Amino acid sequence: MAKVETMQTDLYRIPLQQTLTDSMHGVMLDFELITVRVTDSDGAVGLGYTYTVNHGGAAVAVMIDRYLAPLLQGQDADRIESLWQQMWWALHYAGRGGHVTSAISAIDIALWDLKGKKAQQPLWRLFGGFDPKVPVYAGGIDLQLPIEDLLAQADGYQEHGFRAIKMKVGRPQLREDVARVARMREHLGEDFPLMVDANMKWSVDESIRAAHALADFNLVWIEEPTIPDDFAGYARIVREGRQPIAGGENLHTLYEFQQAITAGAITFPEPDVSNCGGYTTFRKVSALAEAHNLPVTSHGVHDLTVHALAAAPNRTYMEAHGFGLDAYLAAPLRIEDGFAVAPELPGHGVELDFASLEGVRA
Amino acid sequence: MAKVETMQTDLYRIPLQQTLTDSMHGVMLDFELITVRVTDSDGAVGLGYTYTVNHGGAAVAVMIDRYLAPLLQGQDADRIESLWQQMWWALHYAGRGGHVTSAISAIDIALWDLKGKKAQQPLWRLFGGFDPKVPVYAGGIDLQLPIEDLLAQADGYQEHGFRAIKMKVGRPQLREDVARVARMREHLGEDFPLMVDANMKWSVDESIRAAHALADFNLVWIEEPTIPDDFAGYARIVREGRQPIAGGENLHTLYEFQQAITAGAITFPEPDVSNCGGYTTFRKVSALAEAHNLPVTSHGVHDLTVHALAAAPNRTYMEAHGFGLDAYLAAPLRIEDGFAVAPELPGHGVELDFASLEGVRA
Repeated sequence: MAKVETMQTDLYRIPLQQTLTDSMHGVMLDFELITVRVTDSDGAVGLGYTYTVNHGGAAVAVMIDRYLAPLLQGQDADRIESLWQQMWWALHYAGRGGHVTSAISAIDIALWDLKGKKAQQPLWRLFGGFDPKVPVYAGGIDLQLPIEDLLAQADGYQEHGFRAIKMKVGRPQLREDVARVARMREHLGEDFPLMVDANMKWSVDESIRAAHALADFNLVWIEEPTIPDDFAGYARIVREGRQPIAGGENLHTLYEFQQAITAGAITFPEPDVSNCGGYTTFRKVSALAEAHNLPVTSHGVHDLTVHALAAAPNRTYMEAHGFGLDAYLAAPLRIEDGFAVAPELPGHGVELDFASLEGVRA
Repeated sequence: MAKVETMQTDLYRIPLQQTLTDSMHGVMLDFELITVRVTDSDGAVGLGYTYTVNHGGAAVAVMIDRYLAPLLQGQDADRIESLWQQMWWALHYAGRGGHVTSAISAIDIALWDLKGKKAQQPLWRLFGGFDPKVPVYAGGIDLQLPIEDLLAQADGYQEHGFRAIKMKVGRPQLREDVARVARMREHLGEDFPLMVDANMKWSVDESIRAAHALADFNLVWIEEPTIPDDFAGYARIVREGRQPIAGGENLHTLYEFQQAITAGAITFPEPDVSNCGGYTTFRKVSALAEAHNLPVTSHGVHDLTVHALAAAPNRTYMEAHGFGLDAYLAAPLRIEDGFAVAPELPGHGVELDFASLEGVRA
């Protein structure tokens, strides 16, 4: 039995190569990266990480360092489900979601990486091995881009191998969104998979109105039309808007996904493996979606996510957007003619360049 | 206009005078107290605080210190609703509940205290002033107490002016709970208000079975029979168990209370002003409950809570249990013949002995 021996937590502030904007988070200048390296009593190391948009990362690091690392120290590193439950309950009071699940996610990912490395298996195989090729889309964070830049960005995505694209909506006037989506649809051709993301900008009524205004553009989905707390409102948008609705980057527990799905609030669940509770919870959300005859998509950290979706028979398009992390990766994810390919390396196979990261320590 | 000038955050670890136990948190040895002192540009000071059970407090302190304090610095201290929204959105990604609402709560309470002090008004009057006398109950954390000690504790509560008592349930066997409640009911007399609290111990089926087994004891409510995430399960317990059901200490947003109430999951909503978002959110939950023809009760920090309940026409029994905080208060809350009396001091009127707290700095 290999025990959890040490857990090293580090906090970085990653600058973005270009300024990103969406409708509710405003201008994003950088993001915080919280890394965890778990070393077991055999000397093997598992890597996990999570991130925040601008704020909150130091609190996640403190949760891991001060509370969760001491809790796990000395325990059997293989019993991830048991360790997960212990972490959940240790921080349950005042927790039960929020930044706690980001902290748990980073550790859970590190423990799974460790398990994969010890077993000499890539995680997507360890998880059941459905298909290493996962359809992928480029997630543009581009609300403020002039339309010509938006189209040029789409060309760039296609040159990099993407065959599906998501663009932001939620401009001050709905007619601006309609005009931008119309130009993108014309530019990409009528069958090219195109999604839009409103980042919680609209009321329920505005969402339904937008869904109808965008009905002619053959969208794969409309993402996060309103605040994630309003499941009843989302259910109205699904039914009355008559467009597929994605959401989940701001749902932080298996229970929230269950409530949203049971309420008929989302038709494309999109957990983020780095804030929903790690691979352990992501895979349960995948199963929950499958049980409800729904696909599962994703948000964020595609280098990690690809293993979870490559194991899920109901997986659909995985989101890919690099933030600034690509600059610190040994090998960015392979994108080939519309598919991301899960690597055959043991564990998740992601290696961060910690020497370079020293330059952006927060 | 008075601006937020400085915000001092401190973290303490308060030892408990006696060891406390409930069914899910296990043995509690101490709790973490996070205090916030907001000083405005006139030199006036508002005090807020929140707490955790054993773990997580350092993350709350970091959220305030590193992210929320700089955000509010220089802004109009009077515009609490605006500051609240800014705090919510600054930490929304990975937040949306959890420890973020504890951090916001502490600041919100400090801002309201400041507002009351500047207006020379006690908060319960500023909030609308329903009735300064709030019915109160003694919340025992006493699952492991031998029955004779439990009865002696009840006598002590009555000597201190309490005329309502809550006891823990969730022993390994339901028949033990039934026997303990039967003895308490016999000891207290048939009309004495008695509540029980299972602290999420049971499954939904077990909760319904327990509700029926406890049906003859004229309980005011059964609290938190199962995990707070299962609103559908709670609704079954309410309908099929046919007992009033309290819950809310683990709900951290106005939206969660709305979902729980709309689902018919709880009949005694009990927000904790120190983890639901402060006075701002507590008062909205009170209004939500009133709109649904429900009473509102409370959890934790009774010295602060009394102002919110003294302003609410639908207020019912407030929870009082001191943890170890009484030892650091200038003047503990007055309890008179079953009622807590909201003080006439400006703001919330609570003063902490920061000199003594130095001895328990974490």
